Amino acid sequence: MIRFGVIGAGRIGKVHAKTIAANPKAKLAYIADAMPEAAQALSDQYGARVATVEDIMKAKDVDAVLIGSPTGFHAEQIQTASNAGKAIMCEKPVSLSVDLITQTLKVVEKNKTTLMIGFNRRFDPNFAEVERRIRNGDVGTVEMVTVISRDPAPPPAQYVKGSGGIFADMMIHDFDMARFLMGEEFVVVQALGAALVDKEIGEAGDVDTAAVQMQTKSGKIAVITNSRRATYGYDQRMEVHGSKGMVHAKNVHNSTVEVLSDQGYRADPIQNFFLERYSVAYANELNAFIEAVESGNHDPKPNGFDGLQAQILAEAATQSWKTGKPVAL
Amino acid sequence: MIRFGVIGAGRIGKVHAKTIAANPKAKLAYIADAMPEAAQALSDQYGARVATVEDIMKAKDVDAVLIGSPTGFHAEQIQTASNAGKAIMCEKPVSLSVDLITQTLKVVEKNKTTLMIGFNRRFDPNFAEVERRIRNGDVGTVEMVTVISRDPAPPPAQYVKGSGGIFADMMIHDFDMARFLMGEEFVVVQALGAALVDKEIGEAGDVDTAAVQMQTKSGKIAVITNSRRATYGYDQRMEVHGSKGMVHAKNVHNSTVEVLSDQGYRADPIQNFFLERYSVAYANELNAFIEAVESGNHDPKPNGFDGLQAQILAEAATQSWKTGKPVAL
Amino acid sequence: MIRFGVIGAGRIGKVHAKTIAANPKAKLAYIADAMPEAAQALSDQYGARVATVEDIMKAKDVDAVLIGSPTGFHAEQIQTASNAGKAIMCEKPVSLSVDLITQTLKVVEKNKTTLMIGFNRRFDPNFAEVERRIRNGDVGTVEMVTVISRDPAPPPAQYVKGSGGIFADMMIHDFDMARFLMGEEFVVVQALGAALVDKEIGEAGDVDTAAVQMQTKSGKIAVITNSRRATYGYDQRMEVHGSKGMVHAKNVHNSTVEVLSDQGYRADPIQNFFLERYSVAYANELNAFIEAVESGNHDPKPNGFDGLQAQILAEAATQSWKTGKPVAL
Amino acid sequence: MIRFGVIGAGRIGKVHAKTIAANPKAKLAYIADAMPEAAQALSDQYGARVATVEDIMKAKDVDAVLIGSPTGFHAEQIQTASNAGKAIMCEKPVSLSVDLITQTLKVVEKNKTTLMIGFNRRFDPNFAEVERRIRNGDVGTVEMVTVISRDPAPPPAQYVKGSGGIFADMMIHDFDMARFLMGEEFVVVQALGAALVDKEIGEAGDVDTAAVQMQTKSGKIAVITNSRRATYGYDQRMEVHGSKGMVHAKNVHNSTVEVLSDQGYRADPIQNFFLERYSVAYANELNAFIEAVESGNHDPKPNGFDGLQAQILAEAATQSWKTGKPVAL
Repeated sequence: MIRFGVIGAGRIGKVHAKTIAANPKAKLAYIADAMPEAAQALSDQYGARVATVEDIMKAKDVDAVLIGSPTGFHAEQIQTASNAGKAIMCEKPVSLSVDLITQTLKVVEKNKTTLMIGFNRRFDPNFAEVERRIRNGDVGTVEMVTVISRDPAPPPAQYVKGSGGIFADMMIHDFDMARFLMGEEFVVVQALGAALVDKEIGEAGDVDTAAVQMQTKSGKIAVITNSRRATYGYDQRMEVHGSKGMVHAKNVHNSTVEVLSDQGYRADPIQNFFLERYSVAYANELNAFIEAVESGNHDPKPNGFDGLQAQILAEAATQSWKTGKPVAL
Repeated sequence: MIRFGVIGAGRIGKVHAKTIAANPKAKLAYIADAMPEAAQALSDQYGARVATVEDIMKAKDVDAVLIGSPTGFHAEQIQTASNAGKAIMCEKPVSLSVDLITQTLKVVEKNKTTLMIGFNRRFDPNFAEVERRIRNGDVGTVEMVTVISRDPAPPPAQYVKGSGGIFADMMIHDFDMARFLMGEEFVVVQALGAALVDKEIGEAGDVDTAAVQMQTKSGKIAVITNSRRATYGYDQRMEVHGSKGMVHAKNVHNSTVEVLSDQGYRADPIQNFFLERYSVAYANELNAFIEAVESGNHDPKPNGFDGLQAQILAEAATQSWKTGKPVAL
Repeated sequence: MIRFGVIGAGRIGKVHAKTIAANPKAKLAYIADAMPEAAQALSDQYGARVATVEDIMKAKDVDAVLIGSPTGFHAEQIQTASNAGKAIMCEKPVSLSVDLITQTLKVVEKNKTTLMIGFNRRFDPNFAEVERRIRNGDVGTVEMVTVISRDPAPPPAQYVKGSGGIFADMMIHDFDMARFLMGEEFVVVQALGAALVDKEIGEAGDVDTAAVQMQTKSGKIAVITNSRRATYGYDQRMEVHGSKGMVHAKNVHNSTVEVLSDQGYRADPIQNFFLERYSVAYANELNAFIEAVESGNHDPKPNGFDGLQAQILAEAATQSWKTGKPVAL
Repeated sequence: MIRFGVIGAGRIGKVHAKTIAANPKAKLAYIADAMPEAAQALSDQYGARVATVEDIMKAKDVDAVLIGSPTGFHAEQIQTASNAGKAIMCEKPVSLSVDLITQTLKVVEKNKTTLMIGFNRRFDPNFAEVERRIRNGDVGTVEMVTVISRDPAPPPAQYVKGSGGIFADMMIHDFDMARFLMGEEFVVVQALGAALVDKEIGEAGDVDTAAVQMQTKSGKIAVITNSRRATYGYDQRMEVHGSKGMVHAKNVHNSTVEVLSDQGYRADPIQNFFLERYSVAYANELNAFIEAVESGNHDPKPNGFDGLQAQILAEAATQSWKTGKPVAL
């Protein structure tokens, strides 16, 4: 039984609290939030106790800290928890500063802390199956990875301002996925972007539509496209082409039902919300973390290095978009 | 080059005239019809000559007769053409009288006439592929055959009156297909029917919705369902289940295009008309017939026996529907 | 919080114990089984207590009895629980005797007991969606219902002997589904069957491959086909055709992953086991039952009458198969 | 009846000769080729006459010239035919030199010649339907166009040397398609490429795997990916995302047949060869050209300007790949 202290009672904190509460090997011990009422409400729902971040870090009945606070606090909280001997699961991104991530990972490494970064999509059963097929050799040598991510609807422009931009806030999941499936690091990044969905996003200095192409040293190519709005639901697809064939994961529909009429064949819409779409992924992610903690595995994937690399790619893409030039890594 | 005389310039006669005219190994020599203007118009379109049925039967420059006249004339015209030494392709059904078919086949057999019956669906690339997979052993021993046929829209009640009823007019194709895929004869037939689509069809003594289940001596089962109306197009599917797996043929869509929106995923409708849906089947059927004639094959499939057996099943189903009792064969 | 006593710690009892334990509105209080070790093991797993059936019936801290005992005990246990004032969820079939079911339902009715019968498939999200679409008018007036059920592998012949036969043991789910989707009662039943999969099933007096067609008074038709073995997984499909169109539910695949190679396009297999395929259905079923109990709804669907009607159809089909004649109801 | 002189009896010349011979509104009058035996063989097959290019240009019984010669001859032959008053259908690319194309188009414009460029894919029923849906407003304002093209197998390295490279030889079709679907011109081009399939292609100074992303002045983005080898067949897909939804065209399978077994669900492979895949497109293309000639339409699409723009994009992509820098247009 792993006892968790959860930091952050916002949208993602709620996801993790619910997932922990439903896991028979986990105990939701404490919840901390800058807004005490939020922490209280969430604690009440799952029978946990409210605490400060400091309390959680010091608590003897906390084995693991789940960091779901705003991005700006992640690095410091990782370091504190690491020094306190806690296992850590931290939401992405680790930090918007590559330097700060590097410095943080040194602390983690010194302490031999079990640290996992919340790239939950690696644990989606469909995407995990894609990766298994690749490792199994079903498509031979990988040559090209394509990742398509489209959110159902754009966030408020206000959110966008503090988000680090589409490449760090949204595409960072796809950078991690491209690395996960490719199995090689990228050495050049080219980005394009535009605010086509919502003018205010453009006025906030960000884009809502973006494309990135990247290449590894051996010449393999990854292509990522993002949109902040898809009327047909939460579009999450990937495709990997190799010397022996191709493997892809399709979207997940609400049901297998199809209605046929003089309007054609109509399949049910796809799942529209990340909590619904990735609920199994969050549960599997937690299981993987617990297994690492229980077995003393200090380096479960996705680890701090994965968090660092994704951020490096996000920064490179942002720079490429802003300058109109490729960025070499 | 096989020289054809076509008897009948109606809907199905036009299909065959067009198919013959487009085949480099065939020549459309003569066309006969009870309505001379119909024969003239079709002849003009494809550069053929108008003739009487008698002329065609006697003509030295006719190698093969294509019989697309009303069903009531089929048997007699087959016998005449057979005695005149012509090869024969005859539309289904051979006759609504099983006795008359039997008598006709004796003439054909005596003359060693090449006779093919127009069960065009055997030549549809998709259904032919299903049969190939079965013969190839992909599904092991066949245990159950399911055939679904739904027309886009019901014919006029007036047509229905002279049609022989849904089992002889429409389901006869499915009886042939069930035999084709099963590879065994059926020994019992159970039928249900109702006029749910068009009251007038019921008043004309027929049904527009029907289900038949049949069993072979070894216990294998076939299930056929028909409707005279499907709003979503011309529904033509089959599924064969066996000891090693299942093979099925899906419907043919107008295109591979799909539109995704907040209304769900919408695929293009399926092909809606038998001429469009089965144009390749008619061309392949003609090729098979020409190959039989050229190679002197007197017994190409589907042959007269296939025509007889389908009619026997249609009669049995009609009787079962009327009496509410199974019919043993 | 509804407190449950579970009778039966076998395969289906385990399913329900697990589902109850995971439901925040339910408490798994007691488990009874003829084999005390089985009850003990299951109780230990979920923190329940072992009890006799009598204890459960009398226990003041039991609100609802879940009957998962062998079929022969269902009717008596329903009556006892009803007289004891418990709400009841009972597995299908209620009894192999229509008379006994009728008598049992009188007791239930007199006591105004909340009784639900375990036709779990009504609660499968896909099939429930099919029904919603029908009630929503998406396909207009229903004309034909088709249900296809194929188990992955046949049960031991020994099991078959005590099962009541394929129509009462396996197809009973499909009879209920046909009624659920059709919304009308059937007045005639025609059945065919054969032992094609396993000779021993035939020697045990049963069949493993079966087809049934049924008709309502208004002429609507339902077609059900069953096989005890499908190499490609647990095949559970249905299709409803109506005046405005068609709605169908496809099978549920293990993932959305597809591999393309020189061998063609290969989709992941479908879910292969009823526990996996219907885990959500069992959870939804339990929620519906709890909601009925909490709201004092004495007649939640599927109710005792649904259990009775399904058994009547199963008996009729069995008789039709044995006699080779249609059975009128 | 339009009388054609065909220049070139190679692979693409054969396609056009066959298509012309099968079109009732076209007459295949003459065929020219640098290898007279090739011209003779093709003429014999379709009842045409062998001629020199000069003869065809001068012939009074030639209404239209179909240019299927090696790329290096296209521009000069267009000019000669234009000056001779012939209508022209010319294979892509018009020329590898943008300057030469520009100069050629001036001649065409002065003579008001009907000139169509052989971007046959615009006439594929599936892709044409995608475009119709866009123009119909089904996806709202277009924001992103994705084109995926993968050949079944790479050409010989020897062919590659004289081909102009993957961007001019293969991706040129996709540049045209991106313009066709986007409805706007691109102002920036970024390319990546590698020889991952065949080392010899790399040694010949070309790549076999490539990705290009482009942006219009208004910010819309197109992404194109190419591979010279796909084990699963001739992969030709496109997807257009807009403010109201998404439209895409899937691949075309050999049949609608699917086999289910313990190996999963296996659909038939997709069509594997461009002649088979695009046979309908070639026929539709010819019809569009004939209609333009008959109606005196001097500017049928895709026209010379379309040919020019595609070549400009191909050159830009080649340059971007070689220099590693974006190219502005």
